[in-house]
Amino acid sequence: MKIPPVKGTRDFYPPEMAVRNWIIDGWKKVSVRNGFEEYDGPIFEYLKMFQIKSGDEIVDQLFSLRDRGGRDLALRPEITPTLARMVNQRINSLPKPIKWFSVPRLFRAERPQKGRLREFFQWNIDIIGEDSPLADTEVIFTTVDYLREIGLTSKDIKVKVSSRELLADYLISLGIPEDKLESIYVILDKKDKLPSDTFEKILGEQIPDKNTVKKILDFMSVDSIPQLKDFVEEGSGAFLNVKCVLDNLDMMGVGDFCVYDPGIVRGLAYYTGIVFEVHDVASELRAICGGGRYDNLLQDFGGPPISGTGMGMGDAVLGILLEEKKLLQKQLPRRRLDFFLACVDEDNKEAAVKLTMKLRSAGFAANFSYKITKLGKQLKQASEQNAGKCIIIGDEFKDNKLAVKDMSSGEQELVDADEFLSGLMS
Amino acid sequence: MKIPPVKGTRDFYPPEMAVRNWIIDGWKKVSVRNGFEEYDGPIFEYLKMFQIKSGDEIVDQLFSLRDRGGRDLALRPEITPTLARMVNQRINSLPKPIKWFSVPRLFRAERPQKGRLREFFQWNIDIIGEDSPLADTEVIFTTVDYLREIGLTSKDIKVKVSSRELLADYLISLGIPEDKLESIYVILDKKDKLPSDTFEKILGEQIPDKNTVKKILDFMSVDSIPQLKDFVEEGSGAFLNVKCVLDNLDMMGVGDFCVYDPGIVRGLAYYTGIVFEVHDVASELRAICGGGRYDNLLQDFGGPPISGTGMGMGDAVLGILLEEKKLLQKQLPRRRLDFFLACVDEDNKEAAVKLTMKLRSAGFAANFSYKITKLGKQLKQASEQNAGKCIIIGDEFKDNKLAVKDMSSGEQELVDADEFLSGLMS
Repeated sequence: MKIPPVKGTRDFYPPEMAVRNWIIDGWKKVSVRNGFEEYDGPIFEYLKMFQIKSGDEIVDQLFSLRDRGGRDLALRPEITPTLARMVNQRINSLPKPIKWFSVPRLFRAERPQKGRLREFFQWNIDIIGEDSPLADTEVIFTTVDYLREIGLTSKDIKVKVSSRELLADYLISLGIPEDKLESIYVILDKKDKLPSDTFEKILGEQIPDKNTVKKILDFMSVDSIPQLKDFVEEGSGAFLNVKCVLDNLDMMGVGDFCVYDPGIVRGLAYYTGIVFEVHDVASELRAICGGGRYDNLLQDFGGPPISGTGMGMGDAVLGILLEEKKLLQKQLPRRRLDFFLACVDEDNKEAAVKLTMKLRSAGFAANFSYKITKLGKQLKQASEQNAGKCIIIGDEFKDNKLAVKDMSSGEQELVDADEFLSGLMS
Repeated sequence: MKIPPVKGTRDFYPPEMAVRNWIIDGWKKVSVRNGFEEYDGPIFEYLKMFQIKSGDEIVDQLFSLRDRGGRDLALRPEITPTLARMVNQRINSLPKPIKWFSVPRLFRAERPQKGRLREFFQWNIDIIGEDSPLADTEVIFTTVDYLREIGLTSKDIKVKVSSRELLADYLISLGIPEDKLESIYVILDKKDKLPSDTFEKILGEQIPDKNTVKKILDFMSVDSIPQLKDFVEEGSGAFLNVKCVLDNLDMMGVGDFCVYDPGIVRGLAYYTGIVFEVHDVASELRAICGGGRYDNLLQDFGGPPISGTGMGMGDAVLGILLEEKKLLQKQLPRRRLDFFLACVDEDNKEAAVKLTMKLRSAGFAANFSYKITKLGKQLKQASEQNAGKCIIIGDEFKDNKLAVKDMSSGEQELVDADEFLSGLMS
């Protein structure tokens, strides 16, 4: 009986697994050096947890399941609600600020398409309990630190930084009521994803006054902090905050990656301040990652009023960009064996197996050939497995000698078995 | 709104995450050095895939879900069916033997209890396409290689090796029909898990003849290969096979961990030959891991008749044993920062932040203090984060000097900032 995989999921054969490991190991390494500690939660939570603050798009795409007790559960579509739950559970004992990262596997029941899968990995970093814009900057710095580490430059990608608070201030100054803001954010977030006439039509349905719509569009096409003075008070908290983040990014040495772009709004319902996305400069892909400040989220999940700021980066769009820029080819480490043990007669097979096991126990990656074939065939196997050295156990083994072939230079030397081994172990 | 986690799942706060990472990193390291390559599949598959061969216990405990198209899916309770699917999909292009490992997250909707969780991790190693008992031995060797690596000795654990083929031969010689074998395996697998009178009662329901039951019990209490001659032909294939595996384990240097124990039957329906389990010597826990040969599985999943042998080890029982033997305390690496940047006045904060970012980009794990507090408090923070060195940016910074404090010796020296940095970078 032959059963296919489920559409929108991925099989990770060793070559694809190597890419996944390389991406995730990089996320982990950069998180640790930026002072974040790793956490994770369960793959499923109570369904209602994702209905609190995740936004309609995510709620519509939940994979839900029911346990034996009839409780409604869902596969996690994002990890931020779990983070809020876990932090709230131990809020008093955790030293602040909490700097945590995670690389959860996430699930969204959406139509599979380029850069969107039903099952994917997402790097998350969060700083909780620190109001300073320095925390927002540190999140962005860490994001750039990773992207730079894997070989992307400011010619390839841009960090677009904006502020929901500033946008709110401006919209309110235009007379838009506060309770309408959230639904307008959802529309404004689609500005670069929709044809401009469709976008303006949808926005017009929410805001009938054409002049107001025009003012919003003008505000959203600002592309530097100084231009903002035509729209908002230069002394306002929201203005100073976003200016401070961009100045800090300069100070931290990643200013060339970063621009102010009020077109960034983010779809998620819980953002309250600075928001940002990283895009490829050619702008042909979806956002590589995004994040922002969520000062009410912990409270929304039953905790105290403690602020947070964070970022999420999926592996799907990143993977496409890495392919396009040919960065995987350059950087992906190949599978490597230290030793491959070859032997051409049955009499020496036990010796080959024994030596392999000794090498492994001493920490070396080693394989032997199950089949006693011609030496050429075994050398080919050694080369396919990218062995550094091939140890050939042949006739000379009766004098306790091994032939050791360097697979890159092709050079071969005859060595005393005991001396060779004790040399390796020391 | 406060929502609890789902029962039987785990929250991994940084301390628990460190344990999980340590276990999984160890599994990966030992797999790689034993010549296995990593793969993974999706978290969910079509429900029917797990109904083919997984055995009733597993099928009863499936977490099932339905996608938008009304298709029945299930969270994977084991990865072997996925392995069979993936190998069958590329059977012609994969070089044999296929030596693969995986560390999947798995799900079983069972009652949470000691060593059993609804969500857990499991190390899987498999060798596909190699009939030789050497393959079974290599799987067992790799298992022991890991358990020995983390500090367990033959005084702590025993590998109990048995053969379903040998058991089948004996049961058939007693006149038990072949189509009854599978249901008898399920009962025999429970021998050590049930009180002996309950076990004998259940077995008696399947086998009414008391003399036959007695013979089976006698067979199952054999504890060495030589004793087998009273029950089976010493020249039979099944006998020679299990003898060869135990001899090979000796030859590989792990004989002291291994015993023959016909009480090992394994619950899963797909085993056909050698089966084994690792138990703590005190026998107070469930099996730490188990595995065996499954020569028909690929064919059952629509592939060609290719044999396989493998092992699965969960993290739950292992974790309990590690606690009991206090091995975590000894071996778990603590979180470590290379540098903590302290500064006691606002004027130098920017310099501290800048230096932190430079250190991180150069690959060092570094943190700074968000709050400008007294030096003692910041040193405490540095020590809590297990920083190797604390760099103090104080008054001397006006002369471009930094105080560098070694956190373990307590020694402190004043260094030139540029020289210090260029020394680190070189």
